[in-house]
Amino acid sequence: MSPEACTLSFKDLEKHSSADDCWIAVHSKIYDVTDFLDLHPGGGGIILRYAGKDATAAYDEIHAQGILEETLSSDNFKGLLDQSEVVILPEEQKKDIDKIEKTRGQSTSTENYTKPDLFKLISTHDFEDVAEKTLTTKAWAFYSSAATDLVTHHANSNFYRRIMLRPRVMRNVTDANTQRSILGCTSTAPFFVAPAAMARLAHPDGECAIARGCASEGLIQCISNNASYPLASIVESGTSTQAFFLQLYVNADRPKTTQLLHKARSLGIKAIFVTVDAHVPGKREADERIASENVASAISGSVAGNDKKGGGMGRLMGQYVDKTLSWEDIPWIQETSRLPIVVKGIQSAADAKTAVSYGVKGIMLSNHGGRALDTSQPAILTLLELHRICPEVFDKVEVYLDGGITRGSDILKALCLGATAVGIGRPYLYSLCYGQEGVEHLSQILKDELETSMRLAGITNVDQSHPGLVNTSDLDYLVPNVEEHPWIKWRPKAKM
Amino acid sequence: MSPEACTLSFKDLEKHSSADDCWIAVHSKIYDVTDFLDLHPGGGGIILRYAGKDATAAYDEIHAQGILEETLSSDNFKGLLDQSEVVILPEEQKKDIDKIEKTRGQSTSTENYTKPDLFKLISTHDFEDVAEKTLTTKAWAFYSSAATDLVTHHANSNFYRRIMLRPRVMRNVTDANTQRSILGCTSTAPFFVAPAAMARLAHPDGECAIARGCASEGLIQCISNNASYPLASIVESGTSTQAFFLQLYVNADRPKTTQLLHKARSLGIKAIFVTVDAHVPGKREADERIASENVASAISGSVAGNDKKGGGMGRLMGQYVDKTLSWEDIPWIQETSRLPIVVKGIQSAADAKTAVSYGVKGIMLSNHGGRALDTSQPAILTLLELHRICPEVFDKVEVYLDGGITRGSDILKALCLGATAVGIGRPYLYSLCYGQEGVEHLSQILKDELETSMRLAGITNVDQSHPGLVNTSDLDYLVPNVEEHPWIKWRPKAKM
Amino acid sequence: MSPEACTLSFKDLEKHSSADDCWIAVHSKIYDVTDFLDLHPGGGGIILRYAGKDATAAYDEIHAQGILEETLSSDNFKGLLDQSEVVILPEEQKKDIDKIEKTRGQSTSTENYTKPDLFKLISTHDFEDVAEKTLTTKAWAFYSSAATDLVTHHANSNFYRRIMLRPRVMRNVTDANTQRSILGCTSTAPFFVAPAAMARLAHPDGECAIARGCASEGLIQCISNNASYPLASIVESGTSTQAFFLQLYVNADRPKTTQLLHKARSLGIKAIFVTVDAHVPGKREADERIASENVASAISGSVAGNDKKGGGMGRLMGQYVDKTLSWEDIPWIQETSRLPIVVKGIQSAADAKTAVSYGVKGIMLSNHGGRALDTSQPAILTLLELHRICPEVFDKVEVYLDGGITRGSDILKALCLGATAVGIGRPYLYSLCYGQEGVEHLSQILKDELETSMRLAGITNVDQSHPGLVNTSDLDYLVPNVEEHPWIKWRPKAKM
Amino acid sequence: MSPEACTLSFKDLEKHSSADDCWIAVHSKIYDVTDFLDLHPGGGGIILRYAGKDATAAYDEIHAQGILEETLSSDNFKGLLDQSEVVILPEEQKKDIDKIEKTRGQSTSTENYTKPDLFKLISTHDFEDVAEKTLTTKAWAFYSSAATDLVTHHANSNFYRRIMLRPRVMRNVTDANTQRSILGCTSTAPFFVAPAAMARLAHPDGECAIARGCASEGLIQCISNNASYPLASIVESGTSTQAFFLQLYVNADRPKTTQLLHKARSLGIKAIFVTVDAHVPGKREADERIASENVASAISGSVAGNDKKGGGMGRLMGQYVDKTLSWEDIPWIQETSRLPIVVKGIQSAADAKTAVSYGVKGIMLSNHGGRALDTSQPAILTLLELHRICPEVFDKVEVYLDGGITRGSDILKALCLGATAVGIGRPYLYSLCYGQEGVEHLSQILKDELETSMRLAGITNVDQSHPGLVNTSDLDYLVPNVEEHPWIKWRPKAKM
Repeated sequence: MSPEACTLSFKDLEKHSSADDCWIAVHSKIYDVTDFLDLHPGGGGIILRYAGKDATAAYDEIHAQGILEETLSSDNFKGLLDQSEVVILPEEQKKDIDKIEKTRGQSTSTENYTKPDLFKLISTHDFEDVAEKTLTTKAWAFYSSAATDLVTHHANSNFYRRIMLRPRVMRNVTDANTQRSILGCTSTAPFFVAPAAMARLAHPDGECAIARGCASEGLIQCISNNASYPLASIVESGTSTQAFFLQLYVNADRPKTTQLLHKARSLGIKAIFVTVDAHVPGKREADERIASENVASAISGSVAGNDKKGGGMGRLMGQYVDKTLSWEDIPWIQETSRLPIVVKGIQSAADAKTAVSYGVKGIMLSNHGGRALDTSQPAILTLLELHRICPEVFDKVEVYLDGGITRGSDILKALCLGATAVGIGRPYLYSLCYGQEGVEHLSQILKDELETSMRLAGITNVDQSHPGLVNTSDLDYLVPNVEEHPWIKWRPKAKM
Repeated sequence: MSPEACTLSFKDLEKHSSADDCWIAVHSKIYDVTDFLDLHPGGGGIILRYAGKDATAAYDEIHAQGILEETLSSDNFKGLLDQSEVVILPEEQKKDIDKIEKTRGQSTSTENYTKPDLFKLISTHDFEDVAEKTLTTKAWAFYSSAATDLVTHHANSNFYRRIMLRPRVMRNVTDANTQRSILGCTSTAPFFVAPAAMARLAHPDGECAIARGCASEGLIQCISNNASYPLASIVESGTSTQAFFLQLYVNADRPKTTQLLHKARSLGIKAIFVTVDAHVPGKREADERIASENVASAISGSVAGNDKKGGGMGRLMGQYVDKTLSWEDIPWIQETSRLPIVVKGIQSAADAKTAVSYGVKGIMLSNHGGRALDTSQPAILTLLELHRICPEVFDKVEVYLDGGITRGSDILKALCLGATAVGIGRPYLYSLCYGQEGVEHLSQILKDELETSMRLAGITNVDQSHPGLVNTSDLDYLVPNVEEHPWIKWRPKAKM
Repeated sequence: MSPEACTLSFKDLEKHSSADDCWIAVHSKIYDVTDFLDLHPGGGGIILRYAGKDATAAYDEIHAQGILEETLSSDNFKGLLDQSEVVILPEEQKKDIDKIEKTRGQSTSTENYTKPDLFKLISTHDFEDVAEKTLTTKAWAFYSSAATDLVTHHANSNFYRRIMLRPRVMRNVTDANTQRSILGCTSTAPFFVAPAAMARLAHPDGECAIARGCASEGLIQCISNNASYPLASIVESGTSTQAFFLQLYVNADRPKTTQLLHKARSLGIKAIFVTVDAHVPGKREADERIASENVASAISGSVAGNDKKGGGMGRLMGQYVDKTLSWEDIPWIQETSRLPIVVKGIQSAADAKTAVSYGVKGIMLSNHGGRALDTSQPAILTLLELHRICPEVFDKVEVYLDGGITRGSDILKALCLGATAVGIGRPYLYSLCYGQEGVEHLSQILKDELETSMRLAGITNVDQSHPGLVNTSDLDYLVPNVEEHPWIKWRPKAKM
Repeated sequence: MSPEACTLSFKDLEKHSSADDCWIAVHSKIYDVTDFLDLHPGGGGIILRYAGKDATAAYDEIHAQGILEETLSSDNFKGLLDQSEVVILPEEQKKDIDKIEKTRGQSTSTENYTKPDLFKLISTHDFEDVAEKTLTTKAWAFYSSAATDLVTHHANSNFYRRIMLRPRVMRNVTDANTQRSILGCTSTAPFFVAPAAMARLAHPDGECAIARGCASEGLIQCISNNASYPLASIVESGTSTQAFFLQLYVNADRPKTTQLLHKARSLGIKAIFVTVDAHVPGKREADERIASENVASAISGSVAGNDKKGGGMGRLMGQYVDKTLSWEDIPWIQETSRLPIVVKGIQSAADAKTAVSYGVKGIMLSNHGGRALDTSQPAILTLLELHRICPEVFDKVEVYLDGGITRGSDILKALCLGATAVGIGRPYLYSLCYGQEGVEHLSQILKDELETSMRLAGITNVDQSHPGLVNTSDLDYLVPNVEEHPWIKWRPKAKM
């Protein structure tokens, strides 16, 4: 990026306001983004709304500063915006900024709601409640939404409620040890931060605050491929001994993925979690409704060329993901990264076996938090399916799961049923309403609940978790016994 | 119809206002309908309300213009209403017209409700919501109502929610093909518009708007036997290459059915869907309550002779249906129509087998949208029953089903379980609140949801749908294994 | 009763206002009821509230005139109340009368509620709704209440919803015949009016209105042992060819039962339904709460000696029932009545077999409308239990059931599962809000629903009902297979 | 405690207001509690709030007078507070006292709520309702709260609703005998008062009122280890022939337990119920939220050193419990007490067998009222599990259970399934809103309901209860068949 940039006026900027010639200003720097419109993971339409304008507020809401300069070449930099000009924001944009501020925690008493002191929060549900009341409508919709009718979303947590515990009493439970090794990395607890995109929507420090919180709590963070900070910034926010995993969406533009994997290796990332359950975006209606509102305002405004179909933040973000991804790509990812590979998004015993046959180090049972395909079965049910159909998998790879885990007792149940660890996603995003401190407080709550559950169940070490401590009878009838349908034979359509 | 009709005054008309001598005016033409009272599918009572009066508004609400002249002979035409006379509508009738206008979409902002822009609707539920708020009370009651306690109506959709999907991951899903052949006709998707009566209640273009929407979307329309437009008008609304099916209620007056089948054949209709699950009208209480209100006003008014029992629009419309219809009539229908026959309304394996034995080309599993016999089992359960008792049926005929399908994932499940296609009924009626555009938008939503579901499940062609992708465990215990009751022996009453 | 009675003043009456010397006036006649206090089925406390006073209003609410003179001897008659005296009712009593009038249908527009025209009622639920809004609080509580937590009460109807129908289509269903023979008596439909006490609470004509309604509808009435009219009055309200059954609570004072049975025989009653599931009163809390209010006012008033425990109308009424009743009493009842005996209240296969072994003609599966022992199993489940454990019962006796039947489809299901007929209780009490006409209208609704259900299920005669038309899978797992507990052995407490 | 105490001024007291030098006044006596801060079962923080102040009100809310002098040595007594000084209560403390008064029943008409007359209460639910409306927020939270998501709390009672009764009819049920022997002690009914802490929160007479109520009702009280009155005071409140049991939490300071057991024996206690399901405190969020409010006010006030984590009353109270307790301690408890031992808190067949092998006299199936580990299985399910896995246990020890029992029919079901007796906990705390009379009235209600249920089920003596009277089919699929998981093998984590 050339340092000797010329100074441009606001009027200069306004001349480049079409899809064929599109400049925007971000933090007083002016960029030509015409060629980038088609490449933007979030779609070109959203950028066009700011063609010829200052896009700083909208940009900051989602991206950290480094990312822009990482993405564009120096040729795109056109100059500095004249600082003497008063930037007059359109009314709508001002409101956006207000909303962003609202989410940033500086002021917590907007609209008669006072964000409670952190120490008063005693469960993940409390964090969710605060998030719903303090995040912008857009951020809340993006974080909390799930696919279509929310059947899987609700089943994800309800299925844990349907597993009963069978505590053993009269054991000496003075000390309780929750420490566990995950892919060879030591964690103070059998859970890690699951990858979740765009943490900046909740707090300006975004993923970096999570990294610092994990450092002080001795936990592992699996960084989202759609993080709002550059990977290096996040890793450097932590300590030198801290372990990180990286989530990977394989990019349709493969060299970008190669570049990312090399960077991951150079930064000391410990494993790659290849996400395979969201190669096409799920239909998250709460998210999409926000988008259709935006489209409406875009249409009624002067910016032309916007896509009439809309599409939520999630749908837009997924556009770069490679839909051709298949098992044959695993060796390439292994070779490129030279890191342990975990396949995240396994939803059947059949695929678990396939994954194992490709030599991955772990599999993560997940339905993407109910955000991809509604009515797909909860991960805890897939865990049971593995025991029915391919129990040997547990001896060959580490098995993780996520989705709907809100309590220490949920974690204990997953461990009893053979999981090495679980991922916690949305709760950590919600905890960011309090920044790093929120991340730490949430971690302590989950550890405390897990410890209490272990002691009350009669064990003192996570390694003592065993299936005899859980009663899964209320789910057993739902567990598939075979890879295909248990009693319906496939009869391909004959030509009639 | 004699062109040289005399002109009659309003007073002339008023003289014929009894059941024995009943004239009405429709669009300034005066007809003697005395002999037609008993033949009116909707019952004579409703006509008698307008004896000696102008019935235009009430007529238009339900019928298209052609139908009246098709039905009556030229002898019934008595003259033209004197145009110089000012027609003074009774207060009640004016309100009726207001309500009709309300449904026609011209004005969408009545009573503080603004009908949203079409592109903001993103699911079938959105269409239902708009319909509830914009249709007349009567039309909403007729479309949305279902039998007695709504048990079947709710089970129809809930049973789809209870089937879980078991997606396979890491498949190349770049292209998704939803095209399917239905009775030899190509459809861009494995669903068609199920027959649903009286579309004019929602939009003045009624079934013709559906026909045009299907044309542009490449879908097949199964035209209702109780359509508000003449069959020819509907077929001619579409394109010459477009495929139509026709629903058939066999008329107690068989020659009428013969005439209809000949007309269908001459119009190029591709198949006849004989409806067999509503030979007597179900008890749809929401619909009947509207009717009892009407009876109340009739009784308190001056028109005598109305049936005290009332009966909803559905009950009245069903009066002409032949209750003697039995399997022995199938050959007659086949011979008369010389078209492929589908039996619509199969609810048991026993009847599926019988239908196959009569050489029909398809069977449609249906409980008439929960509108006929409450607590009858959902079609998706009957589909499972077929696999248990007579799986060979799937090799011999095409199997369709309808009722409660609101999501692309519902369609995918039906296909995985062996259905060739599904019918979508009420949602298309609701989509008519936006006319042809609504039909198209709804079709796009369903295709988009189906495509997304297919890709997320790991398939790219509807022919790849297979039972291993669904987990039906939550319904399996409900599936009958045998034609009769599995463990109770029939003990006919002995004389005691 | 001496005709030459003396005239007594209100002051004379007031002198006898204690438990040791208690006179009351009813319809201007003064009675000494001191000795009767302990014998009153409703307990002495309620009479004592009117000691030395005019009890006409309270008496009329529950009893028909004949009953008092039938019960007391002529010695108890003390004279006529001086008609010249103005009877000044205490305020509370006036309100009682107002409430009674409210229930009597003369005025239906109290408190902004207008009782709808009868023809607008289209289901049993509509009758229940009207009853709730027009009956006195006390009457509604007595009729609608059920034992403790209402688990059985709700299960009674829900279990019918959980049975699915499997209609057979394409049958000629022109004519539908609902006629059935019940204990040799012809009924136009396979249901009868189940015994339900104190119909006068709903209408002054009480059970007589039911009798007349049954006459015109061709249905059988099973008269309650606690009817508010004398048996003879009820029977005489009908026609000479009409069939009646009589419910029997065996009285702890056996000669009274002997007398009743002889009377029944002389009146041409066709069968005796011995009630065996309510030998001690159930705890119907809604009913008891009304009672505790009454006790409260009694205590705060001047009348002493009232029972602090209260007890609802039902509990009081049950006091005369013989708690020693056992199977050994059946032969005595048979010999005394020389009529066919039905045991009403069978709740297990074990007792069904016992009943058969005693030579009864029918058994009625019943949990007393959920009013006796909460969480006892619904009759429809016991019906299934009989098929599992002792199907031969169906060949030996007629089987009836009641409780929770509100739809024609419920009746059809019971028939398919082997019942000869069902009893309808509460709905008929509710229908009395419209007197005899209500009884007829309700009967027509039920017949119409049954006919519609039969036709839509593909049958035309109740004798064609068979188990293959119902899917009971959702209840099958609840059906006991053996008389005792299927897998728990009884281990009587050893002395420890 | 030295009688010749000096008189100290309020100012003298104020000088000792730190954690290192902490005096408080209780009922005009001044104590040095510095060394006791760490030993206080409720934690030192709560005492520090009153350091240098008069703590009488807060003390009285929870403790009876005797307990303080029993706990401290005479050295701790520092003198009498000068009575001439006017004690000026801080505002907050005054409100606390108001709230306490509110709970004491003297005034029942605060805030528009009039506590109903006792005789109007007819079920345990009525008592709960009154308690919710009259107890302080703190007391209600402590009594009514349960662990985390309340899953077990609700299942505890719902599981009883899911067991159906199968009454046998036509039995002579004139007399019903509910008497039962519990550990050799005669009880008028097969239930006893389960141990529940701090009864003074509901009534100033606390556990003594329960003792007197049990005396007049012929019931056994199992006294809580955390009673608000000294053991001797409670025992002496009753009659000399009355039987008591004592709950035991083994103290980490074992000599205290020794002392307690010796005292129990000397007072004639009949059995020791060792509580084993709450060795670490459960997370009762409603309770903890109250605590976090208190912490908030403490932090914003001047008292330093409070624990930021808070912790509800229950969590604080549990701090002294010995977490090392194991089966090996049973012989020591047996020898020390020389009384029959019951292990309370068994939740699996495995532990039931172990308990029997240690020679205990009874086991109590319990999940601590849903207050310990959420989603642990209800006791009634564990009772069924015992029948599946180790039915011989019923021949060797008496089996009790508690949790969620609110009806006489619940008690009957437990008896039918082999329980000797059940414990009733929260309802008795709630009944204390009416003191001793409330305890008696509640007992009568439960006995009456049990008697009614027995008679309606066809039995007249609790010894006739047998499994054939209950239908457990709706729970059977949830009952574990084996000690370990029925189909999942434990695969300990291999090092990978």
